[in-house]
Amino acid sequence: MDDLRPVGYVIGFLVAALGLTMLIPMGVGLFADNGEWEVFFEAGVITFVAGGAIALACSNGVSDRLSIQQIFLLTTVIWIALPLFGGLPFMLGATEASLTDAFFEAMSGVTTTGATVFIGLDDLPPGILLWRSMLQWFGGVGIIVVAMVFLPELRVGGMQVFRSEAFDTDGKVLPRAAQIANRISSIYVVLTLMCYLSYILVGMPAFDALNHALTTISTGGFSTHDASFGVYQGPAEYVAAVYMILASLPFVRYVQLLQGTAKPLWRDTQIHAYLAVIFTFVILFSIYRMVVNDDHLEHSLREGLFNVTSIISGTGYASVDYQLWGAFPAVAFFFIGLIGGCAGSTACSIKIFRYQLLIASVRAQIRNIHSPHGIFVPRYQGRAVSEDVLSSVMAFFSMFIVTLGVTAVLLAATGLDFVTAISGAVATLACIGPGLGEIIGPAGNYATINEPAKWILAIAMLVGRLEVMSVYALFTIRFWRG
Amino acid sequence: MDDLRPVGYVIGFLVAALGLTMLIPMGVGLFADNGEWEVFFEAGVITFVAGGAIALACSNGVSDRLSIQQIFLLTTVIWIALPLFGGLPFMLGATEASLTDAFFEAMSGVTTTGATVFIGLDDLPPGILLWRSMLQWFGGVGIIVVAMVFLPELRVGGMQVFRSEAFDTDGKVLPRAAQIANRISSIYVVLTLMCYLSYILVGMPAFDALNHALTTISTGGFSTHDASFGVYQGPAEYVAAVYMILASLPFVRYVQLLQGTAKPLWRDTQIHAYLAVIFTFVILFSIYRMVVNDDHLEHSLREGLFNVTSIISGTGYASVDYQLWGAFPAVAFFFIGLIGGCAGSTACSIKIFRYQLLIASVRAQIRNIHSPHGIFVPRYQGRAVSEDVLSSVMAFFSMFIVTLGVTAVLLAATGLDFVTAISGAVATLACIGPGLGEIIGPAGNYATINEPAKWILAIAMLVGRLEVMSVYALFTIRFWRG
Ligand SMILES: [K+]
Ligand SMILES: [K+]
Repeated sequence: MDDLRPVGYVIGFLVAALGLTMLIPMGVGLFADNGEWEVFFEAGVITFVAGGAIALACSNGVSDRLSIQQIFLLTTVIWIALPLFGGLPFMLGATEASLTDAFFEAMSGVTTTGATVFIGLDDLPPGILLWRSMLQWFGGVGIIVVAMVFLPELRVGGMQVFRSEAFDTDGKVLPRAAQIANRISSIYVVLTLMCYLSYILVGMPAFDALNHALTTISTGGFSTHDASFGVYQGPAEYVAAVYMILASLPFVRYVQLLQGTAKPLWRDTQIHAYLAVIFTFVILFSIYRMVVNDDHLEHSLREGLFNVTSIISGTGYASVDYQLWGAFPAVAFFFIGLIGGCAGSTACSIKIFRYQLLIASVRAQIRNIHSPHGIFVPRYQGRAVSEDVLSSVMAFFSMFIVTLGVTAVLLAATGLDFVTAISGAVATLACIGPGLGEIIGPAGNYATINEPAKWILAIAMLVGRLEVMSVYALFTIRFWRG
Repeated sequence: MDDLRPVGYVIGFLVAALGLTMLIPMGVGLFADNGEWEVFFEAGVITFVAGGAIALACSNGVSDRLSIQQIFLLTTVIWIALPLFGGLPFMLGATEASLTDAFFEAMSGVTTTGATVFIGLDDLPPGILLWRSMLQWFGGVGIIVVAMVFLPELRVGGMQVFRSEAFDTDGKVLPRAAQIANRISSIYVVLTLMCYLSYILVGMPAFDALNHALTTISTGGFSTHDASFGVYQGPAEYVAAVYMILASLPFVRYVQLLQGTAKPLWRDTQIHAYLAVIFTFVILFSIYRMVVNDDHLEHSLREGLFNVTSIISGTGYASVDYQLWGAFPAVAFFFIGLIGGCAGSTACSIKIFRYQLLIASVRAQIRNIHSPHGIFVPRYQGRAVSEDVLSSVMAFFSMFIVTLGVTAVLLAATGLDFVTAISGAVATLACIGPGLGEIIGPAGNYATINEPAKWILAIAMLVGRLEVMSVYALFTIRFWRG
């Protein structure tokens, strides 16, 4: 095994930084004058000191250049360390959460899943609510950086198809990550501000607008209300839909846009396919609701648009319990969640580009079957796709489905019913949030789920968020021998 | 497009042969003296004459050598033509079925799915019951021949990994098919006889033993009772389990065994993995049932063994409603159905060897990630697996899952609930038979399903039985241009 210190240093640094950010909800606590500031002060000090200690202990091994093994380890350990510390305020604060609940909620935050174990959100102190939203916001920008810098290096899940766009890092991933994080962050902040102002414009109170802006741009989906977006039916749904779509497009296109080239954005077939899928389902649901539920045009279009974009982008806001629409929407939403947004965004799940690559591969194969002596290579975005990319997409797809099955069976072993087990597995592995059924459906939450199931679900969030294979690669003898 | 006559000739020949086999249930009708003989006489004449006419019309284009396009077309059209004619007795006979029901039942027969739309099986005339079992038996031997001769040629679903075992046909697939059919048929007949005698030995009445032998060896699962195998709880369950396993092993191993070489049978890692999976689930369920349901050892082992082998082999007999055991078994059975038996048998679904190839591929990829300069090739049964095989396995896997999703959404659009839609899609696409829930679960049947859903399910059976890609390849412009 390589030197663990470079990894420890980055982790320590990020944990300490997380501790510092707790000053923000602490300030909110001071302002609200509800005594809550102490919670964040305490959690902040613990987190900062622990992070600082780890970083110091590893500071004699700092290196710009990380090996593949170190990048793997770093990616997964970040997403375990941050929720461990990020959950402290939930244990110390008004939510009085158990370790399980605190870890679940914080993991649900930094993975941008948005499944919640808390009931009575409307009555929680503002500091806690803001902290939940902040965790998602950090997790969102974090995963974009990981998807743009780390995953192409690790060649997992076919993300290397985007490597040429992210340049070669020559092993110096950390400076590259800092540089990308810088550029992405400004875009991310601007989008969040725009989203915030738009929510204000349609009449959302400032605090709710802030929280929802943070969890919209991260496609996280935590809300400040038990009824989620049900509180803001109307124009706010259109605003949310627009920003959920913007947040699930490849962020590299925004970087290019700022550099003055809009062409890559317009020409991106991943974006075309994504918008086409959204359009199709919105139209289908609108027609369905008008015909079957006797709904009127604007209402059915709005609810269709909001809920389709919410699920496909993996945000997971609910404005209504779409299970009440009938069997067709419920089953369709289950599978829409398995489509997902674009790669290089905060969206999770299988993602549009993988379906495009799968289709390209199947087409090439059918050609090869019909003309056994020709050689047809699958193409994506006008370029030939290498075998390497194709096999890792296929590996991702199959391991994702197998993981889904194993997760569902394990959940059922803890006693969850069929619908809850299978939809809970999808809702967490695809980082969506709400599942189906009475318990964890759009109108429910994860509060009453048993403890072992909560741990299984939290691990599923981690595995899904990090594109499955980057976590599994750690569980090979070869990894630790390497 | 190539000449259609060679395809038409084979189809016509097989349809005419099917007509002749109706003499058997006609004989049963005469013997039972219930007037039913007329049904089979009428259906037999129609079928024989129609098949003969098609064969005659195409007889001037007969050829030993079929093109890839012709093999594709032949494979799918056989599995549409046979149920069309095989369903005639259900329309004319005591079941008085509609075209939809007759086609569904016959398709469920020849695809060895075993989903039934008939209620009151116990009171149906023996001729009809025997005809259902016969359809499954023909479908079973038919698919083995297709899997051993046609599919490797078509290079679909990775079946070409077995090509070396089936020799090169040099395009002369029909003589080769006849030769394989001959050898396989004798093994198939002997296994059926052994199964029949074993059922007799454990006390099953002769007529039931015959029917169940026909539907066990074909892993079809049609029964002569509404309660399916629930009527024969006890020793008969062990007998069924043994023969369901034997029927879902690669038949080429039996051919080799008769040639005096048992080594390929013992050394086949597909068989090892298959038995290991069965063993694991039987043990898990037994422990679960003893601990949770307070069951005793023999009973829990027997029911576990019977139901696990019934679902994993895709037979689909039910001896109990395992949904009553609890959430864990219900969800586990759902995913066990997606594992399936061995390739080259009558079993359907994704199949063990594809999971083995997927795992081999993922392992090779993880090695490649860790040692970017090494080249690691996935291996199966000790041999390196070509890219060609891997991509077609991956294509199969992804298209199977996508088809599953689309089927479930379409079923839900006809009004089926979540559990019925999603488990019905699996039950038909994997040719299992029973799904989950009140309606189509182990204690239910497909009688009350709406008409459009029945057609969707029948198509899913066809697509699943023919390894997905062989049907989809027909729907490409290239196919008809070629
Ligand atoms: K989410
Ligand atoms: K079956």
